[in-house]
Amino acid sequence: MDKASFSIHEGKPIRCKAAISRKPGEALVIEEIYVDPPQPYEVRIKILCTSLCHTDYTFCKLDSGPLARFPRILGHEAVGVVESIGEHVDGFQLNDVVLPVFHPHCEECRDCKSSKSNWCARFADDLLPNTRRYGMTSRFKDSFGKEIYHFLFVSSFSEYTVVDIAHLVKLSSEIPVNKAALLSCGVSTGVGAAWKVADVEEGSTIAVFGLGTVGLAVAEGARLRGAGKIIGVDLNPDKFELGKKFGVTDFINPALCGEKKISEVIKEMTRGGVDYSFECVGLPSLLTEAFNSTRTGSGKTVVLGIDKDLTPTSLGCLDLFRGRHICGSMFGGLKPKLDIPILVDHYLKKELNLDSFITHELKFEEINKAFDLLVQGKSLRCILWMDK
Amino acid sequence: MDKASFSIHEGKPIRCKAAISRKPGEALVIEEIYVDPPQPYEVRIKILCTSLCHTDYTFCKLDSGPLARFPRILGHEAVGVVESIGEHVDGFQLNDVVLPVFHPHCEECRDCKSSKSNWCARFADDLLPNTRRYGMTSRFKDSFGKEIYHFLFVSSFSEYTVVDIAHLVKLSSEIPVNKAALLSCGVSTGVGAAWKVADVEEGSTIAVFGLGTVGLAVAEGARLRGAGKIIGVDLNPDKFELGKKFGVTDFINPALCGEKKISEVIKEMTRGGVDYSFECVGLPSLLTEAFNSTRTGSGKTVVLGIDKDLTPTSLGCLDLFRGRHICGSMFGGLKPKLDIPILVDHYLKKELNLDSFITHELKFEEINKAFDLLVQGKSLRCILWMDK
Repeated sequence: MDKASFSIHEGKPIRCKAAISRKPGEALVIEEIYVDPPQPYEVRIKILCTSLCHTDYTFCKLDSGPLARFPRILGHEAVGVVESIGEHVDGFQLNDVVLPVFHPHCEECRDCKSSKSNWCARFADDLLPNTRRYGMTSRFKDSFGKEIYHFLFVSSFSEYTVVDIAHLVKLSSEIPVNKAALLSCGVSTGVGAAWKVADVEEGSTIAVFGLGTVGLAVAEGARLRGAGKIIGVDLNPDKFELGKKFGVTDFINPALCGEKKISEVIKEMTRGGVDYSFECVGLPSLLTEAFNSTRTGSGKTVVLGIDKDLTPTSLGCLDLFRGRHICGSMFGGLKPKLDIPILVDHYLKKELNLDSFITHELKFEEINKAFDLLVQGKSLRCILWMDK
Repeated sequence: MDKASFSIHEGKPIRCKAAISRKPGEALVIEEIYVDPPQPYEVRIKILCTSLCHTDYTFCKLDSGPLARFPRILGHEAVGVVESIGEHVDGFQLNDVVLPVFHPHCEECRDCKSSKSNWCARFADDLLPNTRRYGMTSRFKDSFGKEIYHFLFVSSFSEYTVVDIAHLVKLSSEIPVNKAALLSCGVSTGVGAAWKVADVEEGSTIAVFGLGTVGLAVAEGARLRGAGKIIGVDLNPDKFELGKKFGVTDFINPALCGEKKISEVIKEMTRGGVDYSFECVGLPSLLTEAFNSTRTGSGKTVVLGIDKDLTPTSLGCLDLFRGRHICGSMFGGLKPKLDIPILVDHYLKKELNLDSFITHELKFEEINKAFDLLVQGKSLRCILWMDK
């Protein structure tokens, strides 16, 4: 791809293909759409590859409530190349390889400037808006001229998309783009949860509830920190072998615990409980077990899954009082522009295992097949290539 | 008091006065009792002064459940002098001025050696035992020879008591004993919560729910850390003036909030919420308000009060997920033998305000009057002198 191919469309809509979620629960439809040029603080990017995450599936089948919006272009794990640039865009140039991230990092607000958390008070308050600084209008139109909703500020199931620079990270050209795409969401969330949120230290014990991509990435993060015991909890017995690639040392299948609660089993395995537990499923009952699995006095539970019904979390009064911690985090506590390059570096040094997360690679046109693999639990991450 | 006066009783029971809680809800009765000599790892101490805490009152009127035990010698904030020493006692000598503390610090177990928390895995698991290493037998007998229960490993409402050295801190002779007595429980818990558990930093904002001794001590700790805004929440309007002595800068009377929730008022006062909130009452509904009062993304809530019915804590799923923290702590996260001397030092440097916590000083015989003052909200801490 040469520079000239970018300039042709500069300032004009681009006609390209996208996979559109037209109706709740229905297969995505690949259609021709129009992608507007970027507004100020926005960049239009050509997607090189994208992967699928359970959140895409959740929103694909969501049939009610304010979060259910159709037609929509889903997808939020991807790598792209900058095709054109809006006004007031600093730090990005044409042809830059970039990672869009659903979690914002404006670098200017009080929270972005603080080291206390990765919250961006300026932008992080709402997952609903289509586009960021210029309101709710869409940069996408279908062939009938009708607007299509954005998703999580990324919408990567399209050959081109428009992203606010608060959601964009410049990538090193050294990392293969399919590996880098994993860092847009799930893997970063898991590794970050172990590193930034729990701050797992050498020799500590951890329990991970749910060994999907996020849970396995938690294990991988804990492995790199030198955790002594990494207990994986999953109903799928195949996950133990898989988990070993990411540092899982022990495995609990809740279906085989009999009368015992998972937390009781974990307490027996760890002389009183793990130092850190991570709930990566989004089941209230499992969160209670994760909380009860930690050591009295100092145990910390990190909430990574969200219950689809948003059921409140119920914690034992004395269990909490006696020194336990619980906290949530978005994107594993990582500040995208600051921390993604650090993860890339760990990959390039052959420390961080990204390769094993990629179980499948397909053409973009096969996106519905990729969804099937995800839903059936057959894939961790399936990379969809736009140009292959 | 000369050394000879100690040796008379060494190895023998001492006959002395104690205030006994005979029946739930009834006034304490001052009786003559016998205090056994110390067993290994124990020290018998002559109490110089003691103060009262709401926990004493709670247990005084407790009429059912495993924690309700009568007859009992209550009291757990005090200063004493070592009268005699059991076997294997290192670090304490006759005549040492000492502070008994309900929270153990064995200095030997995994948790005591860790800097992660102040939990003592060896001893902190149970509030029920009468004495520590040598089982459930009592060191107290009444004049009929019947055993009297200990309380929180201290039982300071007695001229003499026996304490395990895991619950004993040696004091500097420079600090007046009535000021030091405050450090046994409430004041240390509050200051420690601000310093160790929340780790309040300069310029941060905090909200304290309940301005009793613990809540005011939280404010005092935050004041010393340079917090920018310290919001006190209490139904008693007099607490604002009192709170100013401990750094409270703003005040909310929940009765005057009208339709608005306390958390809404706090969010308006602080551009989105405080950095740290502290629940010092033990009301589940107030804990929810404390939790909701903190900033999205990084807010931290410290649980200091316990609901008497041990109602589970219910937290909004998304509120937690979006980066909030909540944790409990015993004794403000302080390791007694390590951290009490630091608090003493801050007092001696005229930084830590202990003086304003002492609102009354009475003779030990007036203990029921002291309870009345506490229950009626007229006192913060009332010092009872044994020898005056």
